[in-house]
Amino acid sequence: MAQPDWQQLSTDVISLLKEGRRQVLAKMHQTLTVDEKTSRKDLVTNVDKGNEQFLIGGIRALDPDAQVLGEEGFGDTVTSLTGRVWIVDPIDGTMNFVKQRDHFAMMIGIYQDGVGQLGFIYDVMNDVVYAGGPAVGGVWANDRQLNAPANLALADGLMGMSAPLALHDVAHTQAIVEASSGMRVYGSAGIEIIHVLLGKTLGYISQLKPWDIAAGQILLNTLGVRVSTIDGQPLDMLSSNLVLVATEQAQRDILRIEEDDVSL
Amino acid sequence: MAQPDWQQLSTDVISLLKEGRRQVLAKMHQTLTVDEKTSRKDLVTNVDKGNEQFLIGGIRALDPDAQVLGEEGFGDTVTSLTGRVWIVDPIDGTMNFVKQRDHFAMMIGIYQDGVGQLGFIYDVMNDVVYAGGPAVGGVWANDRQLNAPANLALADGLMGMSAPLALHDVAHTQAIVEASSGMRVYGSAGIEIIHVLLGKTLGYISQLKPWDIAAGQILLNTLGVRVSTIDGQPLDMLSSNLVLVATEQAQRDILRIEEDDVSL
Repeated sequence: MAQPDWQQLSTDVISLLKEGRRQVLAKMHQTLTVDEKTSRKDLVTNVDKGNEQFLIGGIRALDPDAQVLGEEGFGDTVTSLTGRVWIVDPIDGTMNFVKQRDHFAMMIGIYQDGVGQLGFIYDVMNDVVYAGGPAVGGVWANDRQLNAPANLALADGLMGMSAPLALHDVAHTQAIVEASSGMRVYGSAGIEIIHVLLGKTLGYISQLKPWDIAAGQILLNTLGVRVSTIDGQPLDMLSSNLVLVATEQAQRDILRIEEDDVSL
Repeated sequence: MAQPDWQQLSTDVISLLKEGRRQVLAKMHQTLTVDEKTSRKDLVTNVDKGNEQFLIGGIRALDPDAQVLGEEGFGDTVTSLTGRVWIVDPIDGTMNFVKQRDHFAMMIGIYQDGVGQLGFIYDVMNDVVYAGGPAVGGVWANDRQLNAPANLALADGLMGMSAPLALHDVAHTQAIVEASSGMRVYGSAGIEIIHVLLGKTLGYISQLKPWDIAAGQILLNTLGVRVSTIDGQPLDMLSSNLVLVATEQAQRDILRIEEDDVSL
C-alpha cells in the first residue's frame, strides 16, 4: 500500500477502535491483572496488553508492510521513521483506567516518512473519536468537524499539566501555571489533548513517550496548535520528550519564561 | 414549614435546578460579563449572579421562613445555623465555566439546626443531579442510587487537589499526593466531590467557603465519606475551612501525615 486511500483508511481505523472499545468495556468490570512497570505509579493491565495485540492485529491486516510501534511491545522494534509507521497506545491513562474506569483513551498516529498524516484519540467512556490530520484535511469529533481553538495568550486560559512536573517545578512549570488562568490535571495525555483540541485548556506540559503524543501531535497541528519540546524544538518521535503543547501565543509566552531563566 | 416533607422538597429542588440549568445554558454562549472578585483568578459572571437570584427566589417560594446563604450575596446575612438554612452556590467552578463552558456545578445544601439534611450537586453539562442526604436515606445520581465508595487506603487511590495548595505544598499536600496513587485537579469543588461520590478519587483537599462544601458534606457523609478540617475537626459552616474529604482509611492516613510533622 504505497499510496493509501487515506479516507478509507481513516474509516477502517475508526471501525477497529470501536471494536477495541467493545472488548475493553466487556473486560473492564472483571478483575484486572495489574502489573507495575517502572514504579507503583506506572501500571499496565491485561486490558492494555490485550487491546494492543488486538489493535496491532488489525493494523497488520490493513497495512501489512508498515512498521508498528506499540507501548506494550507487541509491535516492531522501530529505529527509523522511513516509510509508514503506526504508533499505538492501547490504553492511555492506565492509572485512570485502573482507579476510575474513566478518563482514558486509545490512540493511534500514522506517520509517513516522519510526517504525521492521520491521528486518532478515542475518549472511550464518552464514546467520541477525535480523528483527522493533513491526509484528510481536518479534525472531527465523531461526525462534527472541529474549528481551530482560539489562539489565546497564556494569561487567558487554563494549562493542563502532568502532576509530577508541576509539583517538582520542573522547567518552570510553576511560573507557567502562575502566569496562566490556572492548572488542571486530568491524568491522561489523550484526555488532556482533547481538552486542548476543544479549546477548554490552551496547552499541556508533560514528559511523554512517542505513543503518548503521536496521535495528538497530528490532530493538534492540523488545528494550528503548536507541539514542541519545552524549549521549542521539534519532537524526536523515537524517544521520550518533555513536551509543550500550546496555542501559538501561549507557546511564545511560555518560551519567554523558559528563556528568561538563565539557570535553564 | 416546621416539618418539611423532605421527599417532596427534594423533588421540588431538583425541578428548580433543572429550570436554572435551562437558563444558564441559554445564556452560556452569549458574551459573559466577567468581573474579578479578590484576584484575576477569582471570577464572577452575570450568569452566577442571575442564577443565584433565580435559585434564591425559588427557595423563598418553597421555604419562606428559612435563612438563605448565597455565594454572591443575594441571600441573608447568616450568623447562626439555628432553624433551617439553605446554602447556595449558583455556579461552582466559575473559572471552568468562563474558560471551558464545562466542568462546573450548581450546589444547594439544606441544614436544620446545623445538621445537614439534603444536598444537591448538579453536573450541569452532563445533566446529572447528585441528590440525597439523611432526610431521604441515600444518594442518587438522577434515578440511580449510589453505593458507598470503597473504603480505600491513601496508597490505593487518586487524590483530588486544589492547585494552589498543592503547588505551594500547604499542609503537607505534596507528601499526601506522594503517598497516594496520584493527583488530579478538576477545578471545581462540586466536580471533585462527584468524583469522590463515584469512587473515582478517594479524597479532595481545598480551602473552601460554606457554599463550596455545604451540599457535598451532606452527600459524602451519607455515603460514609469523611469531611473535616485538615486536622480532623468538624467544619465551621459559617466560615472558610481548609477541608479534607477522604474515605475513612485515607482520612486516617492523611491525619497521620499531618501529625507526624511537628512544624504543623
